[in-house]
Formats: sequence, structure tokens, C-alpha cells
Amino acid sequence: MKAYFDNASTTCISPEVLEVMKPYYLEKYGNASTMHQWGVDASEALEKSRESIAKFMKVKPRELVFTGCGTESDNLALKGIAFSTQKKHLITTQIEHPAVLKTAVWLEKQGFDVDYLSVDSQGFVKPETLEKKIRNDTALVSIMTANNEIGTIEPIEELAKITHDHGALFHTDAVQAFGKIPLMLEHVDLLSASAHKLHGPKGIGLLYVKEGTQLTPLLHGGGHEYGLRSATENMPGIVGFAKAVELAEKHMENEAKRQSNLRDKLIKSLESIDDSWLNGPRERLPNNAHFGFDFVEGESLVLRLDANGIAVGTGSACSSHDLMPSHVLLAIGLPPEKAHGSLRLTMSKYTTEEEVDYVIDCVPNVVGDLRKLSPLVRRS
Amino acid sequence: MKAYFDNASTTCISPEVLEVMKPYYLEKYGNASTMHQWGVDASEALEKSRESIAKFMKVKPRELVFTGCGTESDNLALKGIAFSTQKKHLITTQIEHPAVLKTAVWLEKQGFDVDYLSVDSQGFVKPETLEKKIRNDTALVSIMTANNEIGTIEPIEELAKITHDHGALFHTDAVQAFGKIPLMLEHVDLLSASAHKLHGPKGIGLLYVKEGTQLTPLLHGGGHEYGLRSATENMPGIVGFAKAVELAEKHMENEAKRQSNLRDKLIKSLESIDDSWLNGPRERLPNNAHFGFDFVEGESLVLRLDANGIAVGTGSACSSHDLMPSHVLLAIGLPPEKAHGSLRLTMSKYTTEEEVDYVIDCVPNVVGDLRKLSPLVRRS
Repeated sequence: MKAYFDNASTTCISPEVLEVMKPYYLEKYGNASTMHQWGVDASEALEKSRESIAKFMKVKPRELVFTGCGTESDNLALKGIAFSTQKKHLITTQIEHPAVLKTAVWLEKQGFDVDYLSVDSQGFVKPETLEKKIRNDTALVSIMTANNEIGTIEPIEELAKITHDHGALFHTDAVQAFGKIPLMLEHVDLLSASAHKLHGPKGIGLLYVKEGTQLTPLLHGGGHEYGLRSATENMPGIVGFAKAVELAEKHMENEAKRQSNLRDKLIKSLESIDDSWLNGPRERLPNNAHFGFDFVEGESLVLRLDANGIAVGTGSACSSHDLMPSHVLLAIGLPPEKAHGSLRLTMSKYTTEEEVDYVIDCVPNVVGDLRKLSPLVRRS
Repeated sequence: MKAYFDNASTTCISPEVLEVMKPYYLEKYGNASTMHQWGVDASEALEKSRESIAKFMKVKPRELVFTGCGTESDNLALKGIAFSTQKKHLITTQIEHPAVLKTAVWLEKQGFDVDYLSVDSQGFVKPETLEKKIRNDTALVSIMTANNEIGTIEPIEELAKITHDHGALFHTDAVQAFGKIPLMLEHVDLLSASAHKLHGPKGIGLLYVKEGTQLTPLLHGGGHEYGLRSATENMPGIVGFAKAVELAEKHMENEAKRQSNLRDKLIKSLESIDDSWLNGPRERLPNNAHFGFDFVEGESLVLRLDANGIAVGTGSACSSHDLMPSHVLLAIGLPPEKAHGSLRLTMSKYTTEEEVDYVIDCVPNVVGDLRKLSPLVRRS
């Protein structure tokens, strides 16, 4: 049996999404910035897609900028504000995706002062932690909507309100949350999302930029996307993104319930394995479960489960080729040896209960086998 | 009849290209940075694609960085060098694509000194012009391989050699030339290309970065693409790009001959219209013809030809929504009133002689009709 439980890393495209993309590859292939019929067809599809996603987000179409990926959206948000402001202080958290963290580190080298907020043992940013660090010269606060490893959903409304009360701008990386849980945009100035996390195509992302927000572009050129992101518009990607959002919206409520039930079944079963525990809170992203196992390496778990046809993650996909313990698990207080034995299971609308049961069957055996081989295991 | 003559703006995808992309959307959809089978399938395809394009370019696979578009490649080249160097001088030309020009203008605001080389009446950068401007503190010289409007092919080998002789790095925007004419990379350190100009997908580009070249990334994050371009790899885009390059290479010699003949037929016929002329040299990109017409607005030409089912460009697609005269035509010495009445016809391997004949039939009538309406026309 094959079972794909690495949907936080990337998802398959929905066949319906690929269908709406095809004509923009083969027939309506015009450049949306040209004036002839091919261009008009493309630019109409561009604005229709923008309107459709804006409607889902309850924002103005004019406030959406299509980018090449979530990483670009995060870089555009942080660098775009940093290069536009006279203020010299940024705040983010210790558990952000590398697209935010590494950008913040680079901005430090450019002369910015950056605070990385700590989180509690479940990955929550406490509002009082932000209150303590925010300053008069804070340009931007960037806090993710939901964590990509342990599924913690941050209190964005409250954190964004505090940010606005102090005259700073608020960005949220919503790559993992977009289309899965309702977004609270009241005090949010910038929001990143990516199509390939919700059964859309790879190579297309978006940045919501609230009207009036001053931003320096990352890609200079022909002036596309209101001057904020130059490049020939990726029309197949954009219409695919809009279709993926439409489908996600349609199924969001039902899927949140269904996947939460499957998630809780996974949690109940796998945390009952000896010397194992759940990382992150119980109320979390509907599709995310994340476990720790003593006396086991996460990489070995991934490979053994792969041999059983099961795809899982350990830490974030973006750093899965380095063997450093996850910065998220260290931030929630796990010692490095406990941070190593981690397993992330992330589902999608295509995940079946049969697959969940298969995982529940396999994991205890795989963990048991690995522990038999481990020099670290307690021999009681 | 429908006839698409705006291939410098964007091309249709080859059906064979879309075919190789599909499995990476639907089945082999893994994240190339993950360790399980889905990830391994993706990362194998990533490296196979990289090797295949590297072989065509006669460079090392390790020297190719996949980006989101040609504009990103240009921005990464210029900003990447600017942020890595202590030198403070850059050189480019007056006829570059906006992706280079606007980036250079932005770098001026960041404290760089930029020289914009003039060109002759056919769009050629004279080696002695570069010799005069290059300095000890020149970090980078960026000169396009072939112009996107008037098709001029620059003497890149000689210009790059001069650049190296003065200890600077050389970048070339080869977006219009890639897969159409042989590339001369001997003294080139950085080269930009884009898939959608050669029947590949939109949303994928590449930057060749010669081994040993120090470059600051534009997108910080998970450390993909040797740390030079973080983002989940756009696998459908990448395998599509590789297939498009394979097809372009296979047909390059024949298509260069075939399209040059069609181009010369277009030139011979359209420059015989009264008060019209060819912009750019006669030896030029095989697929490009560019004309000027007195007493006619380029925009009106585009719309009238569109009404006849013919898609053409006027100036660069990237600036076709603003009505400023083309910076390229001004740079080759046309007065603004002569720069306004321009027509760019660009072909592809799908362009037929029948379509060329149709254009040759239509253009004189359309020009004649527009002149009848023009208050500017000489009534002799």
C-alpha cells in the first residue's frame, strides 16, 4: 500500500486544477501584458483569478500580488518593508519557516536589529512576549499563522492588534494555514500563501499587501503586479491557484472536521507507544500530527516507513537534508536528543481512513524494530 | 485566419513539453528536498533536467540555478553581485530589458554608480564604448546577448573578454537568444534564460553562475539550489524547461535557417511600403523583424492587425501598456515621433509560410488605412 503523509511539504495537484491550467499552456498562451486577443484572454483570466482569490480572502483584488512561491512572498514582505522604511527594528519568532528566519538573519547583516520571540512548550507566541519586545522603531512584526512542523495556530488577531497599537506593520506567513482554517485579516498588513500546499501547482504564490502599504519590489523590471513583482505573468499557475483556492474553500469546513478526526485517531494511537509523545498542542492544524520517539532517529523512521510505502516528514522538508535538530523543537524546549526522533504526519483531502489505519499499524512496528537496533535504548 | 507573431513576448508550450510535465503534477508530485520515494523521484528528475540543460550549454550541472523567471534571473545576477562585492561600479547598456535596466536604477539608489552604454544606429554595443567606461572598481558588466525588440545580436565574446581583462564579472541576459542561436560562454560568468520564450512553461527560468562566482541570494530560506535560490523546486516547470531545451537544440540549426528565410521575406516586403524602414541590422535573431512606419501609431497597428487575427508587438511586451516611445528605439537614434510607429514581428518553429504571406498581405492595407485617418500624414 502507498500512503502519502507529507502534505505539509507539498501536495499532489487536483486533476480539476490541471484541467483549468491546460488551455493557458496550449491555446490561451498569450502574455497578459500584451494588447492583442491572446493578451486580452490572458489578462482577463489574470483579473478573474485575482478577484476569485480576493473574494475568498475578503480583501480587494488590488491587494493581491502573485509571486513565484511562498518563499518569495516571505522575502518580498520582509525585505520589501525593510527597504521602504526608516525604522531599523524587526520582530519575528524562533519557530518561523526558514524563508522568514534566514531573511531576517540576512537583514541583520544589512544593519537591522531583529528580535526572535520565544514560544511556550506548545509553540504558542505569548502576546506579552511581543508586548515586551515591540519598540517605537519596530518596522515589522512577522509571525506565522500556523507552524509548518508542529501545527500550532498562533493568536494572530491579538498579536496583530498589539503590533498596530504600537504603529508597526504585521506580516504573517500563512503558507500552511491558507485554505485550511479561516484567516483573520483585520490587523494584518501582509500575508504569504503558496498554491502547492493546497493541491495547486508548484511555482506560484501570493502576497496580500494591504492598500497603502509601502513596499520595495524584490523583482524589478517591466512593472507587472502593480509594480510590485515584475515578470511575465505565470497564467497557468495563476488560474490553477485560483481553482485550488475555490476547491479548498468549498471543502474547508468538512475537511477540517474529517481530517481533525483522522488526526485525533493518529494521535490517540501513536502517543500510546512507549516513550513517545505529541509535539504541539491538541487544538492545531486539522491535517497535522507530530510525534517524538525516544531512542529513534527521525531520518531512520522516514526511511523505514518509506520502505513500507508511507511518506512522512521529519522536521521541515526544507531542512530535511541536513541532520541538525529542528529549530522548532528546540524552541519549544526539547533537548537535542529528544528533538532528533521526530515524525510529522500531514494529511490532505485525498487522505483516507484506510491509509490512516495502515500508518497506525506500521509505526509501532517500525519504532520497535529501530529501537532493537539502537545502542541508546533502555534495556530494562 | 489566426497568426501569432508575438513569440518574443511569449510562446505556446509544445505539447511534448506539457506531456513530460503532467506526471510531476499528478503522480510524482513529491518535494525534491524530502527523503522518501516521492522526494527521490523528484530529486532525480531535478538533477536529470539540470544535467540535460547543462549539456546543451556545455557547462557543469552545478553551475545552473533554477529560478522563477528571466526577470528573477536578471535581478539575482545584478543584485546578487552588487550585494557580494566591495566594488561600487556597474555597467550595462541603454537597450537592456527593463529587468536589467530597472534593477540597475534601483542599485543606483543603493549607492552604486552605473554607466549605461550607448549603442550605434543598429543597436550594437561597440567594444570601444565599453573600453572607455570600464574602471578598476567595476564589479559587473551586464550586456544582453540579443535585443528583445530589434533582434540585434551583440558581440558578447569580445565584450566579455574586455570585461575579464579589466577584472570585472560579465552577465548576459540571453532570454531572447537561448535555444535560438549558439551561446558563447567563454568569458561569461552569469547568463539568464527563461523557458516560456522557447515553448517551455511560464514561471521557470535559470541563471548560469560560473563556478567560483560569489553571489548573494535574492530568495533566502531552505537553502535550495546550492543556497542560491530557496523555494520548493518547481518540478513540472523544471522538467518542462529541460524538454523545451532538448527540442530547441534538436531543431536549432534548421529553424534558424527556416525562420531567417521567412524573416527576410517579411523584411523585403514590408520595408518596400512607403515611408517604412527596418529597425536593427539585417543579420539578427532569426525570428525577429522590426519595422518603423511614419504617420502611424504602433498601438493602432497592433489593434488593427489584431482585428485581422494577427498578434504582433510594439516595443517590448513588458512596457506595452505604457505609451512612452521604446527606450531601445530612442537609443538607436530615432526621434520620438519615429519611435512611435513601430511593429515587431517575432516567429517560432510553429510559424508557417502561409502565416507570413497573410501578414505580408495585411500590413500594407492596415498601414494604408491608418494613414488615411492620420492628421500627420503628408498629403502630397
